Amino acid sequence: MYDLIILGGGPAGYNAAENAAHGGMKTLVIEERALGGVCLNEGCIPTKTLLYSAKIYDYAKHGTDYGVSFGSAAIDHEFVVNRKDKVVKTLVGGIGAKMKHAGVDVVMEKATITGKDAEGFKVQAGDKEYTGKQLLICTGSDAAVPPIPGLREAVASGFAMTNREILDMKKVPGKLVVIGGGVIGLEMASYFNSIGVDVTVIEMLDHIAGPTDSEISKILLKNYQKKGVKFLLSAKVTSVGTDCVNYEKDGKAESAPADVVLVSIGRRARTAGIGLENIGVLTERGAIVTTDEGRTNVPGVWAAGDVNGRSMLAHTAYREGEVCINNMLGKKDKVRYNSIPSVIYTNPEVASVGETSETIKEKGLEATAQSFTLKYSGRYVAENEGGDGIVKIIIDKEHKKVLGVHMIGSYASEIIYGAAMMVEKEMRVDDVKKFVFPHPTVCEVIREGIFQL
Amino acid sequence: MYDLIILGGGPAGYNAAENAAHGGMKTLVIEERALGGVCLNEGCIPTKTLLYSAKIYDYAKHGTDYGVSFGSAAIDHEFVVNRKDKVVKTLVGGIGAKMKHAGVDVVMEKATITGKDAEGFKVQAGDKEYTGKQLLICTGSDAAVPPIPGLREAVASGFAMTNREILDMKKVPGKLVVIGGGVIGLEMASYFNSIGVDVTVIEMLDHIAGPTDSEISKILLKNYQKKGVKFLLSAKVTSVGTDCVNYEKDGKAESAPADVVLVSIGRRARTAGIGLENIGVLTERGAIVTTDEGRTNVPGVWAAGDVNGRSMLAHTAYREGEVCINNMLGKKDKVRYNSIPSVIYTNPEVASVGETSETIKEKGLEATAQSFTLKYSGRYVAENEGGDGIVKIIIDKEHKKVLGVHMIGSYASEIIYGAAMMVEKEMRVDDVKKFVFPHPTVCEVIREGIFQL
Repeated sequence: MYDLIILGGGPAGYNAAENAAHGGMKTLVIEERALGGVCLNEGCIPTKTLLYSAKIYDYAKHGTDYGVSFGSAAIDHEFVVNRKDKVVKTLVGGIGAKMKHAGVDVVMEKATITGKDAEGFKVQAGDKEYTGKQLLICTGSDAAVPPIPGLREAVASGFAMTNREILDMKKVPGKLVVIGGGVIGLEMASYFNSIGVDVTVIEMLDHIAGPTDSEISKILLKNYQKKGVKFLLSAKVTSVGTDCVNYEKDGKAESAPADVVLVSIGRRARTAGIGLENIGVLTERGAIVTTDEGRTNVPGVWAAGDVNGRSMLAHTAYREGEVCINNMLGKKDKVRYNSIPSVIYTNPEVASVGETSETIKEKGLEATAQSFTLKYSGRYVAENEGGDGIVKIIIDKEHKKVLGVHMIGSYASEIIYGAAMMVEKEMRVDDVKKFVFPHPTVCEVIREGIFQL
Repeated sequence: MYDLIILGGGPAGYNAAENAAHGGMKTLVIEERALGGVCLNEGCIPTKTLLYSAKIYDYAKHGTDYGVSFGSAAIDHEFVVNRKDKVVKTLVGGIGAKMKHAGVDVVMEKATITGKDAEGFKVQAGDKEYTGKQLLICTGSDAAVPPIPGLREAVASGFAMTNREILDMKKVPGKLVVIGGGVIGLEMASYFNSIGVDVTVIEMLDHIAGPTDSEISKILLKNYQKKGVKFLLSAKVTSVGTDCVNYEKDGKAESAPADVVLVSIGRRARTAGIGLENIGVLTERGAIVTTDEGRTNVPGVWAAGDVNGRSMLAHTAYREGEVCINNMLGKKDKVRYNSIPSVIYTNPEVASVGETSETIKEKGLEATAQSFTLKYSGRYVAENEGGDGIVKIIIDKEHKKVLGVHMIGSYASEIIYGAAMMVEKEMRVDDVKKFVFPHPTVCEVIREGIFQL
């Protein structure tokens, strides 16, 4: 008998489990595959491991700009993939230790909710049944594989892959075609381009990087084109062959030859086959409907992470899990979805938080967006020959509150959390002016921009 | 006739000039050497340019850990120094353009305050005299050259150098002895060690990096010893010869052979020869005495930057200059010296803000200090084989307010500003818990730590 059963040991689940245990709840986590979820096993961490090796290799290519020469540089993709496995193993082990330390029980099985009685919710895992007074559903998401003719066959044969398989691919393909120019597609395109693969990205929209501010998206596109990645924008994939991807662009049928195809057109909440229907949990377009407190329509049943289809980011999942536990423990809390940062770990990095130039127009906000070159930063100039990075700051006209910050350039990933603090705390330009940013840094350009607003 | 005459066009001066002009003041900047001051011409920016090249070279050395091999890697020190000159020239030009754009007059001369009459303060620069209703003194600092026997002769002969000369040295010495294990000494030791020089650091104290939290200072020392930098701690330099530095350690007289000596034992405010005595500006131990608003003892005379001897950091200078101008314009403002971050750009980087383990003891604060390994960060693990970085968080016991944050490890320089916001805004642990940090990042370890406090 548990106070809480958590379905899924990814970022939402394991983090919530630790908080619940610290809050005095007897907690069980049931995980089907591996602790850490998609993020740790086949997402954020593996890609960052690969991208870091690529970054070192990229440095070598541009070293002469900075006075460093290399007789010959080579990257060993198989070594990189093996190292990735090692890193993942270490971190998965760390989560296991954390669960043990917090006193959380962990069962490695597929879980199915079978019903509810006076004692609580019933969950079947392997050949055992567990009872929990409350349930937290954190079953995550799967890569979407749309019904494009030939795609399912291509996935079955190994010609097409999702993020899961491509991260384990040890051979280096000659030509990689990426279907979908969102975050995952771009990060993988970035890695394979760096190690010398001929990469083509096919994107249905007229821009890459999805909801990213359009000015930043354009700079990223230009950088990637310069590195030799080919982009087919406003192009619709019509079918996948055995050695090519067929698409339509400008009304014409075309074909892109490929040795490997990556399908990265989005992710779908994993809600099927876990017994949601047995207790009547409401879903919408395949995702569990939640409030900002993480409640589902069924009292005592909560959901956090990708499974609610709201943000699909690991750090949102952490926060959602926390918020659920806080509410269970009687501490009112809710997720503020407007101040969640996001990062694309390409080179240059992209990081964003809050409103964009596009969303302020859509929402009809009285706000202004202004961009500032990262060349205001001495460090950026010292470290980036020919860099074209920017910071874009969005403020409302009436109170000069910071509504959004967007960056493309070095360290953006590690800088954006401070900007997210500004957005979350609804700071005004005059508040930010009083902070001292260390010199010389790239983050100083936020300060520089604030003084010009 | 000017509303404001600023003596010195470094970070305090040029930034204040721009703000003053925006505030409607007719402003003159008088600079003796070059716009940008020590920071831009012989400090922060040049060292960061060198250190970035060294970082690329370091990557090459450790590339095999990440699957990247280099047939042969070489660093061209002369190229690096020439590139540094180019970067500095670009940025100095940028400041000139800024001054012009803001409508600030700039005179390149040595300035001397000659007196005051009913119109204002009189300043002689070259063969002209200027009058200003108010004065802002931003004359900066010089490297201290203490009266150690033989040192002045060694500086005259070029055997010993300060930060200014060593940054222009184009030959690579075999052996470098650094006198003083503070920030400047460590950054230069870091660069020359990376490019293959035999480096010995002699430090009078029993630890390096001055006021840095002792736990962080020890980790930095260990990292540098591992790279082959030799440290002589608790060692007192007794004299400088023509090919060695003599010192006393543990009561014994010893000698360290050197091809070049760097003197980096601190900096002294530059207050001599500028005519402070002609208007009665008070100094203490050679530095101008200022309030937290930047006022000197003479009404209408303000001082900002290194010349006040308070913090000796470029970003403090910016803020001090701003605060002076705000107060001149009738906007009450003052510098909060407790939330100014500081950075050491060694590899690993060190960054700090607020109270340390040592200062809470000295001040008798009811506070706790706790350290967290950066291995909590998946990104850190992915990017640092064998890394030993930490984040240390200091909170007060009563309110759990964040009093200090200290880091050693990758990206620390770009992460610390967010921690400085926490200290400046006196945020509590529970406030910080509500911020969403992007995943996977190194900055997340602050969040992880906060949840354990």
